Amino acid sequence: MDKLVLGIDIGGTGTAMGIVDRRGTIVVQRTMSTTGHDTVYSFIDALAKEAEILMKHAGREKMGGVGIGAPNANFFTGEIAYAPNLPWEGVIPLAKLVREALHLEVAITNDANAAAIGEMTYGTAKGMKDFILVTLGTGLGSGFVANGQLIYGHDGFAGELGHVIAVRGGRKCGCGRYGCLETYASATGIVRTANEWIEERGMVESLLSKQNNITSASIFEAAQNGDGVALELFDYTGKILGETLADMVAITSPQAIIFFGGLSKAGELLIGPVRKYMEANLLKIYKNKVALLCSALPDADAAILGAAALAW
Amino acid sequence: MDKLVLGIDIGGTGTAMGIVDRRGTIVVQRTMSTTGHDTVYSFIDALAKEAEILMKHAGREKMGGVGIGAPNANFFTGEIAYAPNLPWEGVIPLAKLVREALHLEVAITNDANAAAIGEMTYGTAKGMKDFILVTLGTGLGSGFVANGQLIYGHDGFAGELGHVIAVRGGRKCGCGRYGCLETYASATGIVRTANEWIEERGMVESLLSKQNNITSASIFEAAQNGDGVALELFDYTGKILGETLADMVAITSPQAIIFFGGLSKAGELLIGPVRKYMEANLLKIYKNKVALLCSALPDADAAILGAAALAW
Repeated sequence: MDKLVLGIDIGGTGTAMGIVDRRGTIVVQRTMSTTGHDTVYSFIDALAKEAEILMKHAGREKMGGVGIGAPNANFFTGEIAYAPNLPWEGVIPLAKLVREALHLEVAITNDANAAAIGEMTYGTAKGMKDFILVTLGTGLGSGFVANGQLIYGHDGFAGELGHVIAVRGGRKCGCGRYGCLETYASATGIVRTANEWIEERGMVESLLSKQNNITSASIFEAAQNGDGVALELFDYTGKILGETLADMVAITSPQAIIFFGGLSKAGELLIGPVRKYMEANLLKIYKNKVALLCSALPDADAAILGAAALAW
Repeated sequence: MDKLVLGIDIGGTGTAMGIVDRRGTIVVQRTMSTTGHDTVYSFIDALAKEAEILMKHAGREKMGGVGIGAPNANFFTGEIAYAPNLPWEGVIPLAKLVREALHLEVAITNDANAAAIGEMTYGTAKGMKDFILVTLGTGLGSGFVANGQLIYGHDGFAGELGHVIAVRGGRKCGCGRYGCLETYASATGIVRTANEWIEERGMVESLLSKQNNITSASIFEAAQNGDGVALELFDYTGKILGETLADMVAITSPQAIIFFGGLSKAGELLIGPVRKYMEANLLKIYKNKVALLCSALPDADAAILGAAALAW
């Protein structure tokens, strides 16, 4: 009998889950909100209910296990620890809680690591042995693959590119430090830049100055309509991201950097400036060698598939 | 019959070589100057002469191969490319030249990668699967090990920590860019800081202001004698290095960072400040987890042993 697994991607705002077969087909999937639950226990209750509906649909008896990608999730310990972009504080024994709720074996990892495994197994990074996966969502996550293996590090917490200091003494980050890359280069970061600029300069010439609630989507839309400030926002975001990626290339010398998640939907509007500033800052031996690509997997699929790949 | 290999470590100023057996014993070794040769060909001629003396001594018929560690050396192509700390420009087909000169198989890698392999096989990193080796010599080199494997990257040029930008728009580097870590954190870098400070502030209160030719050794000696400015130089160097290492920990989450080479001889005078500033800048999940250690292998042994390990 063909086995199935459940892949779950827990994000800062939404959680996506899907039943996946061995070939990487997502048989059926659902999404739910990550926020709005009083405690992690009520979140797990809600998650279990959604999961049981999916598993009943696909055939409960075929279920072989569960893989979860979540911010700050640790492959080795099965815990989420101090995740600044999740509503729960401290250390959460996520794998244990889900195991008890669903009575299935559970493996977890960083959401971005899961996406990297998904891309390597089914996506743009198929066949690549050295690449970096960067997720640009509420925060900035990353999965580093070297020699065909995901880098978990000694304690399972490797790949926190979002918390590399991009601007020393810069913006306050949810992690309590200052100048972290994700405070500039993420869906949240570009909105923060826009609001700072409006406060500082007014920017009456921009479509954005008339918006009450600027979002990364509204910046994208304004840029598509040729709004100069919106284009400048992508250029600035691309500068900070490109400069930091130039440093990362010097560490793992990847074949490609693959972008995934909300802000990466901006495509060349963002990737163009990232490429320009990364190349300008690369050590000579790396110039014109590193491909910057966007994930070709639709929406949350890479994360679900990656999480599922963990479960096999 | 027991085979032997020749391990060669080519540095910015000196080249060390040794005949190594399977157990990692350096049977016999020699050093020579890297500089003072008109072309790379005359350097290879001199190197071959030295090597033949050693090999004759150890038994030419037992020689199984040659491993070389050198700045910017590429494991995949056998070439040295654009090495800012070596006297030769452009791309040098080092493996081919040495193969033709010695009539033995030759494998090459980055000098710091070779040191990392040496530490992992015979030194402080024995049994470690995730660590960073940092060489503090004329420049700053590094070897990143993850999942028990050296990270070569897609093209063999991974591990250039010395060219991560530590101070954006900072000091001019030999690579042509500005603010590279090695312009601050290396034997050359600390001397550059000292000379800058003397020019800017006079520093008449320091022993160093009376020296015509400040070296990293004379700064070390002054610091050991309690010279306030010399201690401040180590603090400043440790700050720049510690801040950058905190970012690197977020990428590969190593068990340890191992220091090797000239400037690391300063021991706690340097490692103390590095630890202080690294810990102060670490993301919470990494705090008090990463050991900072000095290589226990004498002098050039780690590099020779690492180069030799390549040859097996």
